[in-house]
Amino acid sequence: MALAPPPSGAGVVACTGPLSSITPTLKHLGSCSKSFDRFPPPSVCTSSGEFGGFGGVWRSLEGLHHSDMAVRVTAVRLAALLVTMSCARALALQRNHILGRPRATRGFSESKRVYYRTLYFDQQIDHFGFLENGVFKQRYLLSDQHWHQNGPILFYTGNEGDITWFCNNTGFMWDVAEEMGAMLVFAEHRYYGESLPFGEESYSNAKYLNYLTSEQALADFAVLIKSLKASVTGAQNSPVIAVGGSYGGMLAAWLRMKYPSVVTGALAASAPIWQFTDMVPCGDFYKIVTQDFAKSGINCSKSIRRSWMAISNVSSTGEGLQWLSEEFGLCAPLKPQDVDDFRAWLQETWVNLAMVDYPYEANFLQHLPRWPVKVVCTHLQFDSGVTDRQLLHGVSQAVKVYYNYTGSAVCLNMSETATGSLGTRGWYYQACTEMVMPMCTDGIQDMFEPQSWSLQAFSDECYGLFGVRPREHWASMAYGGKKINSHSNIIFRRVKRLVLLTESNGDLDPWKSGGVTKSLSDSLVAIVIPDGAHHLDLRYSNEHDPQSVIQARALELQHIKQWIKQEQV
Amino acid sequence: MALAPPPSGAGVVACTGPLSSITPTLKHLGSCSKSFDRFPPPSVCTSSGEFGGFGGVWRSLEGLHHSDMAVRVTAVRLAALLVTMSCARALALQRNHILGRPRATRGFSESKRVYYRTLYFDQQIDHFGFLENGVFKQRYLLSDQHWHQNGPILFYTGNEGDITWFCNNTGFMWDVAEEMGAMLVFAEHRYYGESLPFGEESYSNAKYLNYLTSEQALADFAVLIKSLKASVTGAQNSPVIAVGGSYGGMLAAWLRMKYPSVVTGALAASAPIWQFTDMVPCGDFYKIVTQDFAKSGINCSKSIRRSWMAISNVSSTGEGLQWLSEEFGLCAPLKPQDVDDFRAWLQETWVNLAMVDYPYEANFLQHLPRWPVKVVCTHLQFDSGVTDRQLLHGVSQAVKVYYNYTGSAVCLNMSETATGSLGTRGWYYQACTEMVMPMCTDGIQDMFEPQSWSLQAFSDECYGLFGVRPREHWASMAYGGKKINSHSNIIFRRVKRLVLLTESNGDLDPWKSGGVTKSLSDSLVAIVIPDGAHHLDLRYSNEHDPQSVIQARALELQHIKQWIKQEQV
Repeated sequence: MALAPPPSGAGVVACTGPLSSITPTLKHLGSCSKSFDRFPPPSVCTSSGEFGGFGGVWRSLEGLHHSDMAVRVTAVRLAALLVTMSCARALALQRNHILGRPRATRGFSESKRVYYRTLYFDQQIDHFGFLENGVFKQRYLLSDQHWHQNGPILFYTGNEGDITWFCNNTGFMWDVAEEMGAMLVFAEHRYYGESLPFGEESYSNAKYLNYLTSEQALADFAVLIKSLKASVTGAQNSPVIAVGGSYGGMLAAWLRMKYPSVVTGALAASAPIWQFTDMVPCGDFYKIVTQDFAKSGINCSKSIRRSWMAISNVSSTGEGLQWLSEEFGLCAPLKPQDVDDFRAWLQETWVNLAMVDYPYEANFLQHLPRWPVKVVCTHLQFDSGVTDRQLLHGVSQAVKVYYNYTGSAVCLNMSETATGSLGTRGWYYQACTEMVMPMCTDGIQDMFEPQSWSLQAFSDECYGLFGVRPREHWASMAYGGKKINSHSNIIFRRVKRLVLLTESNGDLDPWKSGGVTKSLSDSLVAIVIPDGAHHLDLRYSNEHDPQSVIQARALELQHIKQWIKQEQV
Repeated sequence: MALAPPPSGAGVVACTGPLSSITPTLKHLGSCSKSFDRFPPPSVCTSSGEFGGFGGVWRSLEGLHHSDMAVRVTAVRLAALLVTMSCARALALQRNHILGRPRATRGFSESKRVYYRTLYFDQQIDHFGFLENGVFKQRYLLSDQHWHQNGPILFYTGNEGDITWFCNNTGFMWDVAEEMGAMLVFAEHRYYGESLPFGEESYSNAKYLNYLTSEQALADFAVLIKSLKASVTGAQNSPVIAVGGSYGGMLAAWLRMKYPSVVTGALAASAPIWQFTDMVPCGDFYKIVTQDFAKSGINCSKSIRRSWMAISNVSSTGEGLQWLSEEFGLCAPLKPQDVDDFRAWLQETWVNLAMVDYPYEANFLQHLPRWPVKVVCTHLQFDSGVTDRQLLHGVSQAVKVYYNYTGSAVCLNMSETATGSLGTRGWYYQACTEMVMPMCTDGIQDMFEPQSWSLQAFSDECYGLFGVRPREHWASMAYGGKKINSHSNIIFRRVKRLVLLTESNGDLDPWKSGGVTKSLSDSLVAIVIPDGAHHLDLRYSNEHDPQSVIQARALELQHIKQWIKQEQV
């Protein structure tokens, strides 16, 4: 992937002018407004296909120095660290999946070319205290090719990663820009991508990390929006709609809740705003994953449940480890200390499969056949008499559906399930502070190894890693928990794969996922897409889109247009 | 005034039990709930009359060490410092008055006896960062004598001062408690009264002061409410109504805006939430004060406008200073360096008079006759031929209406216009950070000496005093500025004295004060009390209350009851 230029690079509007405390960067534009009414034509663009090649490139964690930190400093290793240490495993896994972290994008490409400008805004490091008065360069991407004066602004509230990645993976916004005459803005979340409050040192100590919170990020977004509207000619009365997916979707909803004067409404896709303590049973997510496998093939989830013991048995000898390595075609032979990583890698693979269980052949996390879980399950139809090695052979065949559907993989790399565009170290810090989303497995209602949730153990690990302790109730306190009915103009878009089915009849009741799945009022709308999957909904329209997705998008546009109309009255 | 007991004193519920991170103090109560359903009978009460004797007791600023700080370390001196230094004067004066700081309460007493318990809650020092994980004891007062299970909670969002003072000066809540079956809670604002995050050191350096913000205070209130509801038997479903006056009124409104899941509605009395940059002309407040004098007597405001030059002329000689001191009956003879303090004291006196210009004899800031400004103005009906000493004799007679209506004062003390229960040093810090409320005078449309507003000069002073610089746009960013129409269930109660009349015809249009004076929706209600005055509205009912106040209170109760009803459906 071609990275966007650094702050000093091309693509930044070069005009300078008087600065104010709130609109430092954009005052530039304001002061230039006589020479051009709109942003000058984009000189730097990213295009389709270019972002298809960043599978497996993990950023190192060289900035993170803690005594308890293991020596191997890749993000996967950090995940594995947590996986191998008590109850935090569930959270680590939850993080890797439910919040929409595509673990590999090898071979992925888009058919459309998009144009945007890369800009930087001088953002306050600390919005909530005045001692730290420094600023940092917050990156944002802007496209106004379809925008007209007073037209709406669709504002993507950046997740935990490089904003160009989210920009390129949110085709929905590009699709509707022309019809809406909308300006598109993609704002990067602080501490991710290039938006580092203390530059390369941002992750070097607990003091510098102290400003990595969702509240600070929301304030960034609000201040940036206000500045844009004040400085871009013709944008003063532009209604702003926040858009986001996964954690970005949570931020979009929260931005509307906390700064309703700044954003007229929000489209929050796959946003598990209720995935916090006491709001959702900790086992729900893994139950949903398990259900997908259970209904996709005879004995499928049962076989996976049995596989963990089989791995223990087989990996107990050197010969067994060698067999496993060869059977799975791993790029690096397993050593005894790698077995936990191996289990975690498999668990992540099953979760990823459930997330991308699309009803048509697709290429999101991987190139996969239609209903990939059904295909996977054809390799897992064992009864109880199966031997360990027969079972694990089936598992290896199943896993290869995910990693090698096209047959082009030479070997399977256990570190290749994630993209370097996502900021794992930052997210772990957030999970260790306010984004405390308990997860657990019991091995009975789900197909995973039992793992209970212990806040204390998790807290101790966080303290060891970052010198901070989680506040498990803070997020629900700050953002209203389940009592959000006084808010307005938010669409919560969910896909069926992420809601819990009752075991008995497959009905969608009770829906117990961490997202809002029932409309709470006329203007707090839940839209559930029955045939969708995680991240499908914010993507470019596709000729294979099921009718439900098409209808959902139309309904969303209808709501958004209505909010805009009300705003403009 | 009898101060409430310190954290270690009586009145604290002594039960102990398991602590959680969010409900540390109140878990005590929860764990004790089997032994008593409600709080035990109060053992410590404050009663009427006791809070009548704290006029002129200023707290020293011994904790505040800055190189630029003057040697005299009383709060009045701090005010004077700002007054004598460039444009910050306006802000200093604004602070002393518009936010309802009664400058003297000598002789004030109430006729009712109230009972409450003094409790302490372990509150997070920093809600918005995780590095500082300490807690402090937040004081709150609780009265449940009229409360029944599931009954509402009226929650006073403490201002910039000792919470017992606000408790005793908010008779409205005590008046309605029985009718509503309400629990009353008065929560102290951090950094004021006894609620000091770093104890006696809280004001000792910029690092400790860093957590003194309205956002932190709102989070305190929200966390406390949630904890109370979780731990007090029968309070789980109790609707909570925030109540506050002046800055406390701003906090009440903002609490509903930012934490609508926690408070069902808010009664924001005399809350200048729009008194920020670009929302209200900086001269409006002093124009309103001037208008009150202009319409209360022939040449009244003109005489005051002339008096400043007369003071300059007379005070230019030692004999003149002695004459002034004797004419005004000052307790301490004026020295040349005191003349600016003298002017500031007069200016504060005129503003106080405008605020308490009640249509009946009253005893709020001082014991005063009905329409005190009219009485004052009888001493100021000079034409242009008046000599300086004739004019200043009239001014001294006018001032004595305010300070010596009862004839009991032996001499006038220039430092006696404020109560030590209010935390001036804390408020100055807040004014120097986020509560930036520009004020100015021009000497033409108002009767004061011209004083323009310069953010830069103000900022430099703040930096010298506290090591911080104000962010003038932050408060309107954080709290929505004038665009608050998406919120609900807030009553903004204003009094006519605090809205601007047009010079020409006395109509109430345009209303340009810093408060909300027009209803924005069915549930964002503005109630203007035509015959009221600042702080009358939240006080105990009184047989002399004009009909408008009685009607306003009834209307407010009606709204609040409706919100509660809706909440309980």
